[in-house]
Amino acid sequence: MAVYLVSRRAAGGSTPLAALRYATSLRPYSTKFREERDTFGPINVPADKLWGAQTQRSLQNFDIGGERERMPEPIVRAFGVLKKCAAKVNMEYGLDPTIGKAVMQAAQEVAEGKLNEHFPLVIWQTGSGTQSNMNANEVIANRAAEILGHQRGEKFVHPNDHVNRSQSSNDTFPTVMHIASAMEINSRLIPNLQTLHAALHSKSEEFKDIVKIGRTHTQDATPLTLGQEFSGYSTQVKYGIERVLLTLPRMYQLAQGGTAVGTGLNTKKGFDVKIAAAVAEETKLPFVTAENKFEALAAHDAFVQTSGALNTVATSLMKIANDIRLLGSGPRCGLGELILPENEPGSSIMPGKVNPTQCEALTMVCAQVMGNNVAITVGGSNGHFELNVFKPMIASGLLHSVRLLGDASASFEKNCVRGIQANKERISKLLHESLMLVTSLNPKIGYDNAAAVAKTAHKEGSTLKEAALKLGMLSSEEFDTLVVPEKMIGPTD
Amino acid sequence: MAVYLVSRRAAGGSTPLAALRYATSLRPYSTKFREERDTFGPINVPADKLWGAQTQRSLQNFDIGGERERMPEPIVRAFGVLKKCAAKVNMEYGLDPTIGKAVMQAAQEVAEGKLNEHFPLVIWQTGSGTQSNMNANEVIANRAAEILGHQRGEKFVHPNDHVNRSQSSNDTFPTVMHIASAMEINSRLIPNLQTLHAALHSKSEEFKDIVKIGRTHTQDATPLTLGQEFSGYSTQVKYGIERVLLTLPRMYQLAQGGTAVGTGLNTKKGFDVKIAAAVAEETKLPFVTAENKFEALAAHDAFVQTSGALNTVATSLMKIANDIRLLGSGPRCGLGELILPENEPGSSIMPGKVNPTQCEALTMVCAQVMGNNVAITVGGSNGHFELNVFKPMIASGLLHSVRLLGDASASFEKNCVRGIQANKERISKLLHESLMLVTSLNPKIGYDNAAAVAKTAHKEGSTLKEAALKLGMLSSEEFDTLVVPEKMIGPTD
Amino acid sequence: MAVYLVSRRAAGGSTPLAALRYATSLRPYSTKFREERDTFGPINVPADKLWGAQTQRSLQNFDIGGERERMPEPIVRAFGVLKKCAAKVNMEYGLDPTIGKAVMQAAQEVAEGKLNEHFPLVIWQTGSGTQSNMNANEVIANRAAEILGHQRGEKFVHPNDHVNRSQSSNDTFPTVMHIASAMEINSRLIPNLQTLHAALHSKSEEFKDIVKIGRTHTQDATPLTLGQEFSGYSTQVKYGIERVLLTLPRMYQLAQGGTAVGTGLNTKKGFDVKIAAAVAEETKLPFVTAENKFEALAAHDAFVQTSGALNTVATSLMKIANDIRLLGSGPRCGLGELILPENEPGSSIMPGKVNPTQCEALTMVCAQVMGNNVAITVGGSNGHFELNVFKPMIASGLLHSVRLLGDASASFEKNCVRGIQANKERISKLLHESLMLVTSLNPKIGYDNAAAVAKTAHKEGSTLKEAALKLGMLSSEEFDTLVVPEKMIGPTD
Amino acid sequence: MAVYLVSRRAAGGSTPLAALRYATSLRPYSTKFREERDTFGPINVPADKLWGAQTQRSLQNFDIGGERERMPEPIVRAFGVLKKCAAKVNMEYGLDPTIGKAVMQAAQEVAEGKLNEHFPLVIWQTGSGTQSNMNANEVIANRAAEILGHQRGEKFVHPNDHVNRSQSSNDTFPTVMHIASAMEINSRLIPNLQTLHAALHSKSEEFKDIVKIGRTHTQDATPLTLGQEFSGYSTQVKYGIERVLLTLPRMYQLAQGGTAVGTGLNTKKGFDVKIAAAVAEETKLPFVTAENKFEALAAHDAFVQTSGALNTVATSLMKIANDIRLLGSGPRCGLGELILPENEPGSSIMPGKVNPTQCEALTMVCAQVMGNNVAITVGGSNGHFELNVFKPMIASGLLHSVRLLGDASASFEKNCVRGIQANKERISKLLHESLMLVTSLNPKIGYDNAAAVAKTAHKEGSTLKEAALKLGMLSSEEFDTLVVPEKMIGPTD
Repeated sequence: MAVYLVSRRAAGGSTPLAALRYATSLRPYSTKFREERDTFGPINVPADKLWGAQTQRSLQNFDIGGERERMPEPIVRAFGVLKKCAAKVNMEYGLDPTIGKAVMQAAQEVAEGKLNEHFPLVIWQTGSGTQSNMNANEVIANRAAEILGHQRGEKFVHPNDHVNRSQSSNDTFPTVMHIASAMEINSRLIPNLQTLHAALHSKSEEFKDIVKIGRTHTQDATPLTLGQEFSGYSTQVKYGIERVLLTLPRMYQLAQGGTAVGTGLNTKKGFDVKIAAAVAEETKLPFVTAENKFEALAAHDAFVQTSGALNTVATSLMKIANDIRLLGSGPRCGLGELILPENEPGSSIMPGKVNPTQCEALTMVCAQVMGNNVAITVGGSNGHFELNVFKPMIASGLLHSVRLLGDASASFEKNCVRGIQANKERISKLLHESLMLVTSLNPKIGYDNAAAVAKTAHKEGSTLKEAALKLGMLSSEEFDTLVVPEKMIGPTD
Repeated sequence: MAVYLVSRRAAGGSTPLAALRYATSLRPYSTKFREERDTFGPINVPADKLWGAQTQRSLQNFDIGGERERMPEPIVRAFGVLKKCAAKVNMEYGLDPTIGKAVMQAAQEVAEGKLNEHFPLVIWQTGSGTQSNMNANEVIANRAAEILGHQRGEKFVHPNDHVNRSQSSNDTFPTVMHIASAMEINSRLIPNLQTLHAALHSKSEEFKDIVKIGRTHTQDATPLTLGQEFSGYSTQVKYGIERVLLTLPRMYQLAQGGTAVGTGLNTKKGFDVKIAAAVAEETKLPFVTAENKFEALAAHDAFVQTSGALNTVATSLMKIANDIRLLGSGPRCGLGELILPENEPGSSIMPGKVNPTQCEALTMVCAQVMGNNVAITVGGSNGHFELNVFKPMIASGLLHSVRLLGDASASFEKNCVRGIQANKERISKLLHESLMLVTSLNPKIGYDNAAAVAKTAHKEGSTLKEAALKLGMLSSEEFDTLVVPEKMIGPTD
Repeated sequence: MAVYLVSRRAAGGSTPLAALRYATSLRPYSTKFREERDTFGPINVPADKLWGAQTQRSLQNFDIGGERERMPEPIVRAFGVLKKCAAKVNMEYGLDPTIGKAVMQAAQEVAEGKLNEHFPLVIWQTGSGTQSNMNANEVIANRAAEILGHQRGEKFVHPNDHVNRSQSSNDTFPTVMHIASAMEINSRLIPNLQTLHAALHSKSEEFKDIVKIGRTHTQDATPLTLGQEFSGYSTQVKYGIERVLLTLPRMYQLAQGGTAVGTGLNTKKGFDVKIAAAVAEETKLPFVTAENKFEALAAHDAFVQTSGALNTVATSLMKIANDIRLLGSGPRCGLGELILPENEPGSSIMPGKVNPTQCEALTMVCAQVMGNNVAITVGGSNGHFELNVFKPMIASGLLHSVRLLGDASASFEKNCVRGIQANKERISKLLHESLMLVTSLNPKIGYDNAAAVAKTAHKEGSTLKEAALKLGMLSSEEFDTLVVPEKMIGPTD
Repeated sequence: MAVYLVSRRAAGGSTPLAALRYATSLRPYSTKFREERDTFGPINVPADKLWGAQTQRSLQNFDIGGERERMPEPIVRAFGVLKKCAAKVNMEYGLDPTIGKAVMQAAQEVAEGKLNEHFPLVIWQTGSGTQSNMNANEVIANRAAEILGHQRGEKFVHPNDHVNRSQSSNDTFPTVMHIASAMEINSRLIPNLQTLHAALHSKSEEFKDIVKIGRTHTQDATPLTLGQEFSGYSTQVKYGIERVLLTLPRMYQLAQGGTAVGTGLNTKKGFDVKIAAAVAEETKLPFVTAENKFEALAAHDAFVQTSGALNTVATSLMKIANDIRLLGSGPRCGLGELILPENEPGSSIMPGKVNPTQCEALTMVCAQVMGNNVAITVGGSNGHFELNVFKPMIASGLLHSVRLLGDASASFEKNCVRGIQANKERISKLLHESLMLVTSLNPKIGYDNAAAVAKTAHKEGSTLKEAALKLGMLSSEEFDTLVVPEKMIGPTD
């Protein structure tokens, strides 16, 4: 809860040594430092970094996971968006315009990813994300001060009084969680799923006349077209897109304006509505202020819900990728109905050995998304009272799932689905060898005789036609007239 | 895939002994048997049971988990609904009306739960649910035959030719999964969540003027009203209801008409639409035929999606129940802000020891729902080709979650929420002891002085007022005018 | 915390109506009632049941899930074991031998499952299992009183003072959790896994000379023997057994003697050690008293650990069952290397269509075990202070997993693995069609020429031999000498 | 399956543009390129990087997740260890010593992390990790060539023939998974858990004489010492360490020597044993060759098992951190029994507001570990035939959990546990206010009178003593003699 942070008293503090120690687990900083202060007193900060005292303390207190566990970039950028909008709205409520405009400019740089290197904190910090909120406040304050011709650390622009004005970590962090997630879903996940859907749908059209054996329980069954099979996949992806979109209205609700516990203490009436409108304008997404700020701070059910939709998408993609690799298995000893694009050497000695590597990357992603869903659920269910303090984990888990599913869908479409070809010869061979086409003979020769044909063929390893002729059931012409898989792929009139 | 089952040849077969062996893990059957037959030959079946040969084989081949793992009753009843509707529509397509009507009557008895004892199969059978479909076919056929004055086992009414006509297990089982789930959600879960929501909302109104200490990070924070706190809970439940409702459109899509692999082989055009309409009429729920039958057989994404919504509801209820038990902790050494209803002896010697047992039952249910969600996800992602064969597990997992959440919500509402009282004295005591009310002094005496007051109070264990007076910051009257928690519960004008 | 329960005062109480209402969701009781009492006053109890007032209250207050959610039978029986041992040890510490012996006799009946119908409570009750402990106390007290010629409800033998003497629900319930789980693991799971291991190992021996194509990435790869392939499966099961056994030492630690919070208040020194010894003697399992009773009440890490081992076993069995159904896919259009036993009609018209139903039941079980693992983890992580109150859910989840894995392993072994046959002809055909046998030609004709052979064969759909002869690389005899898959199944000297 | 890779023919290939496109999602490369080749032909590679053609293709084909998804550093280093050992053993089997020694030197640099920047591939690649194996082969080959005075790309030292000699990705990748995990567990997780255990144990000793109220069901219960409470925590961590250690024997089994499908084709007898011995010597850990190589390639049950142990540790730490933050809640309106170290400003205005930020970071980590466990389980259960192709996900998931648990345990110990102080005054106040001390009066005044005392105190909000005196039950001296919490913390003689 950073809402009250105003003070700047000195006392004791860390030496450069502490900062240096940390450097062992991150990449080396410059060895020059400047002094920054917070209510705990002064602390040394790398001179070439814009962050301040609270960021520096977090760096030293949370040496967990190293650099790859840094707060995800979409969160950092969303802080830029939010702080820009907050400055804009705060000017309406009396913030000095000179300072307000400098804050907006500095925040815009954050939103554009230009100051990423000044956001060193990891996910595994305080569960309210306070330290990342302060990181944003400190960086923007120092950058805005520079823009106005002042020095870093001087606090000409104050991280709390100016940048964090009318805000608390407890409402800013959930707000950036929602902004970052909604933006990533809209800009990365949905378009890539749409591209994948289009590719699967297109294959479904391309393959609409290829009749093939069906398989249930992994066993031979009645026929369908390869196009029908792919229509199942494209429907799964289409529904997946709809499932994700259905969760967005909750994601568009912003906590901003709730401040420390949801009451909106220290804000003015209307602030919440105005800031949501500003974020909506800035992002071109239909953000609104949350109907109930207590729910918005204390729970992240919206993330659990969206993660559930991603989990469903992962389930669909796992099924599709599994089918495709099994249908493409071979080249000689598998099912071999599909020919998958060859993107890299599978083996230099086995021509035709195409490892379905895109399926593999995608199914690994799906497994991770399923795992993240559990992590998000555990985090989401463990809030206490007015604040859920699993925020950074929940946010990064969801963004991880969104990124992986989005990227892997694009990769799968581009490097696999788009190039899938039907192995028509193989498909036809399997179809016509299948014993269950005998079903078509029932009306003509009766069930018992048809069964005798099938059993003979199975026992002798012959074709149905061979068996039928051998048993003298019907002529070659009659067989060919009756056994037509193409007539078995839909209901009759 | 039971769609073709017609034959009734004999050969070998099980002895009564095999059936008796099974009896050890279920409750004892009569020792009288009759012979039933399927394509594997004759097999002895308990004379007082309506089931037939295939059910009996499944009983003997899947001795897994015992009686408590039987297919859930809503599935059995949904088979009654479906088979009744199928007979009705099949009569339009030429099924003998005498037989059709008898089938409808027998199916109605199944739908009403009157024949539950004739459905002995467990969940852990074939993954298509074929054996439960045959169980329904066999029971309805034998019962319909009896209605028409024939003997069990005679097959005057045939389980496949009549009861299963134009159907396959591969489309009937997903259909009953959807019917059973939609009915349970509509009749049990949603109403009970609505009752819970109403109770929480009513408490929110009742408590709207009780100002209390807020808690973030489990630590004292700025105040809010107890009504505001409960409004967060009621919003969570309201959204939970909406989340579940949002998933129903997919649940209303029925696979019926897809038969073995989704093509609709062996049905007539229009059968799928008519049967969905019949089910809709029978259940008064808006069922429609599935847009894509291949998806409807090969995937159960609709269940993964709905389970994701239930998982979100579980997350919400875990949070709410946790808060309530912590706020009600005590009577002397906890937070003690809530007085929970006492439903049973907590301990005979400690009056006032109320164990929050309803919270405990509910949170255990939530944990199980989270686990079922993973089971359903794993099952949903492991389909192959034209058929997902985790159907009974997926269906029973979802029905389990729906039943538990529905029942536990009702129990929690009735035995806990409804009777919650605010411990106003305790709430007021804590509120006024809190140090963070000092925030109100900032405008009057400045931050530094306010901080000095708070620090003094903390150090000396005194009240803020005592500290303020001691430090000579202001008069008793001034303090009382300025420090008014009731003014800290919202934004200012 | 039932440890102090002594009193029996009257006041108000439920009417028979409340009991009747409950009857709608359980099976009908007799309509006769007798009055029982606890500190809440009198309450009517079905006359033909042995339970008392507290059980009756729980029945009415926790109408969650219905009959199939009853506390698992192994828990009920373990209460019998524990209460018998407690009476025995309590006699050493002064319990009246007449009463003690009657309690032992009554408890023995519970241990033998003879009084199961008197344990109606569901899992979803208080999270300490207090009500089931009281159910056991009440049933045993009433039964012991009857043995001594007294009436039910008279409390000649007292549920708390005699049956529960020196005990609290907080130590008895974890104790029965451990007893029940250790017994089920030892008597059901381990033996069945051992049988499955033996069958897989035996198949590995049986198939040791059958050379077949290997598959990596689902694609054709270098050969191995079918025996080698099965040796992987049997090793997985062997390790699985070891994994489960490794967790038993923690399961053998009993909480008994910790009473309400782990301190052992109200017990005598040495009670904990004696009762563990008595349980060990009774069950022939090496139970000992828990090293730290605070951990034993407040956490159930032992269950999370064992569930993790079961989760690993589920992972193994999922892999094995998946492989077996894919290797047995066909009969004409799949891999077809294995012939699986046919246990029930797959379809009456397609001879040779064997649905791998045992694989399906087993993989569904595995998915459920994975889900239960998450439920147990969530429950295990949510304990507070001196007591974890997810006990019944954790216990029933683990017992569910143990039962399902144990039964399904037995079913899978008996109805599938034992009867698996190799389709030698098919295996040989696939092996010799494979292009990667070309590897053997490298030493003779060089990599480039070998690659040319493989590429030609792939392009023209011919055999390697045909391609080699066509390209004039070597003679038919040379080819046959060099291309010998049997030499490719191990390292060279 | 990289085992056969020998060829290096040209054909088409990517342009620098493709490499540049990728650069948008990774950090900018130099714009200079050199040509590298594999069986797909030439491809441009950044001139300042040591990797070759196959690495470059993977970079372009798997644009998933960006830089933070790179293969974890411990995997890269383990490749260094393995390739060094392989060269050493290969020299025994005839590898040219000049080349062998250069390979060893280059591999040593990889093992030391000096060449990390040359390992750009992400986790989400082929599921066998082939591309990372080739990345290691290519980097080491080019670096070894440089050591010997040759150019990059010349293949004087060949990635397949020399560096990958007698190896396949299918055995090297599981081998490095095991090496990396065993090293991280031994060097990071276990020591940090031990430190945490020591700190908790030390607190348990420090607090051994502080008697406090117990809490069950979150409600007041009988007393225990704060030391006893902490002994539960330290026991949990002690057992957690043992649980992880119990899984290491499987982790010490190396797949190396199995090559493509587990048979060991293309290796010499004894190679597997020798290489395990070399790795053991290099790492000082007791690695051995896997008993069954088929299991070692096709399944990763060892990872599922170890992840289950980590999941148990996470469960324990979640419980401990939750207790500590609740016991430290306050400063005025919570339980307030513990004083937690203040590491950063919680709020500038509320002295004493210590946010339990270390608890929050730790519990977020625990949630993530639980999620990773599910991801690993899903991946582990989805292997097919001779190869599990979820290897990189499984490995990175486990390493993620190990790293997070290890680092967070250290941070929690250092920044929280070590500095925890008991708030003795508060503890004593709560203890003596508690009503359940009345239990001690039972022997003197009888249960009924004792209950009357408790009920009076509860009703009137008075102390037990006040109530006892008011009711005239006993004198002040008698009360003080009898009510002694210090005598309630263990069994009696």
